[in-house]
Amino acid sequence: MTDEIEHRRLIIAGSGTAGLTAAIYAGRANNEPLVLEGDEPGGQLTLTTDVANFPGFPEGINGTELINRMKEQAKQFGADVETGFVESIDDDTRPFRVELSDGTVYTCDAFIAASGASARTLGIPGEGDLMGYGVSTCATCDGAFFRDEDMLVIGGGDAAMEEASFLTKFADTVYIAHRREAFRAEDYWVDRITEHVDSGDVEIMRNTEATEIHGSREEGIDHVSLIRHPDGHPKEKLDTEQAEEVEHFEHDVGAVFLAIGHTPNTGYLEDTDVELDETGYIRTVGGHGGGQTETAVPGVFGAGDVVDYHYQQAVTAAGMGSQAALDADDYLDDLEPAETPAAGVAETDD
Amino acid sequence: MTDEIEHRRLIIAGSGTAGLTAAIYAGRANNEPLVLEGDEPGGQLTLTTDVANFPGFPEGINGTELINRMKEQAKQFGADVETGFVESIDDDTRPFRVELSDGTVYTCDAFIAASGASARTLGIPGEGDLMGYGVSTCATCDGAFFRDEDMLVIGGGDAAMEEASFLTKFADTVYIAHRREAFRAEDYWVDRITEHVDSGDVEIMRNTEATEIHGSREEGIDHVSLIRHPDGHPKEKLDTEQAEEVEHFEHDVGAVFLAIGHTPNTGYLEDTDVELDETGYIRTVGGHGGGQTETAVPGVFGAGDVVDYHYQQAVTAAGMGSQAALDADDYLDDLEPAETPAAGVAETDD
Repeated sequence: MTDEIEHRRLIIAGSGTAGLTAAIYAGRANNEPLVLEGDEPGGQLTLTTDVANFPGFPEGINGTELINRMKEQAKQFGADVETGFVESIDDDTRPFRVELSDGTVYTCDAFIAASGASARTLGIPGEGDLMGYGVSTCATCDGAFFRDEDMLVIGGGDAAMEEASFLTKFADTVYIAHRREAFRAEDYWVDRITEHVDSGDVEIMRNTEATEIHGSREEGIDHVSLIRHPDGHPKEKLDTEQAEEVEHFEHDVGAVFLAIGHTPNTGYLEDTDVELDETGYIRTVGGHGGGQTETAVPGVFGAGDVVDYHYQQAVTAAGMGSQAALDADDYLDDLEPAETPAAGVAETDD
Repeated sequence: MTDEIEHRRLIIAGSGTAGLTAAIYAGRANNEPLVLEGDEPGGQLTLTTDVANFPGFPEGINGTELINRMKEQAKQFGADVETGFVESIDDDTRPFRVELSDGTVYTCDAFIAASGASARTLGIPGEGDLMGYGVSTCATCDGAFFRDEDMLVIGGGDAAMEEASFLTKFADTVYIAHRREAFRAEDYWVDRITEHVDSGDVEIMRNTEATEIHGSREEGIDHVSLIRHPDGHPKEKLDTEQAEEVEHFEHDVGAVFLAIGHTPNTGYLEDTDVELDETGYIRTVGGHGGGQTETAVPGVFGAGDVVDYHYQQAVTAAGMGSQAALDADDYLDDLEPAETPAAGVAETDD
């Protein structure tokens, strides 16, 4: 690290499938991208042991291996990959000023936000302390460590159903705690879970919230404190009468899997003019033709799970990554017209 | 083939990266897709010898091999792949009625159009007859067959510049005939071509159109007839005075590469309510969240180059294919609610 501010033509925040595919394309376009790898290098895909649905790998591929292959590919085309967590971007200046959490400052002409989304947590006592010691945000990563134990999945959406279904392979019984009466999950997953309930692999606890996770890093999780609301999940704080109706109970489990959604990693964009939706996802132009990954700030592009709150697939993120690199290349081309234009060769005619 | 009309839950037209990725996802979602492979099986990717920018293959991969891997992957998850060229779809009935050019008829609940785009041709004498015998729409496929010969590339966009640049590896001289004065191509490609012009590998013929290709299937191409307009490409038919100014000439080349764009394969949708743009590309919803691949007809989805007239990358098409399969799955789920809903498990609550 030097005191000089390094200038880069293109910085890509994030080293998941979106960021690395953008880097492959940007490298090939001679934009010499710098990929900044945050505190979850490789992104969500590295949390998956066996990726079965990335096209081109009929035998499946380990998530980390797939990421490493993409990283190698990006480097071959001239991408630099460095560890760095983007703290802030100043979009009032050109070039942009990008500050990392370790104090390093870069400037860049274009920026691709491919910083993904991270699993949400509950914020209850014991959760943070036992994260990685029985509390997990990734059933496919950690399920096999708790073979033959009872497991608790928290959540009511597709991810919760998918994780619970997956965990039946390992668990004695999988319990699902959902704070509402009805599930948000799609029929497909509700059907799968119903089958598991019928066969005794899964038990559902409705209108139920975890309030504390008990255990130690040495011994793992001992039990979880929960409350059950007789009238369903209250939107407001309980009044005294309601509070009396709430049933408190303890439940012994060996592992807790949080499947309560993701939060996009866009904190560093909050002081910019990049438009975010109410949950923090980047608003890109979308639609048809070129420029689909443009944000509200010219020169800043968005790709992958930091934009896509719906599909969230590796190959979809990769596709958006390639689009972002091509959009950024168009932007950079317009920014700096070729220094030696061919005599008589106009840029466009129609 | 039987006289009975076979019903399928989901038909996917096209076996390129979009269609096959859709098939992988649809198979995993138990929608038992039937993939109909048209007269360009594998799509545009099979025209590429070495695919360097598909993420996950740092050593590059042969286009046909990548397609075969995707096909194997789709079959593993229950997709059927059959030869069949869709002639028409009746979207006035449910299920849809899909008729193939050989007379086979299917019905289906959902349909994904992933039928891609095909290279455009000029329609001049000699072109059709010599296609594959010196006339080609794919430099990367056929360039090496004409080593050390003079070659003619027709077109003025990115594809023409890329093909001409690629062909300098093999050709004695590459000639580019463009019907206008200025190129439509991006700076990047104009720069590359200018370098080749400077080094003597490429010669540019502006305001020039090919009118006939001469040769035989046995001997290949002998020469091409061209005309040059002194005042640039006329939009209207020439009047007598202008016609006199036109310069006719012959040019000896060993191969002609057409790089004048693509036409989306959407003829079979013309009598449906699927909305096409003025050049025939499918209009999908796009934007944010779910349903991005929906067309104007509920139950018909679009993915890949048949939608995307701009990026046209293998990985972008694959990403859209996964989106289309997920959108189709949502549609099919809503169409047929689960037959055995879990007691007390509502479909959604918010």
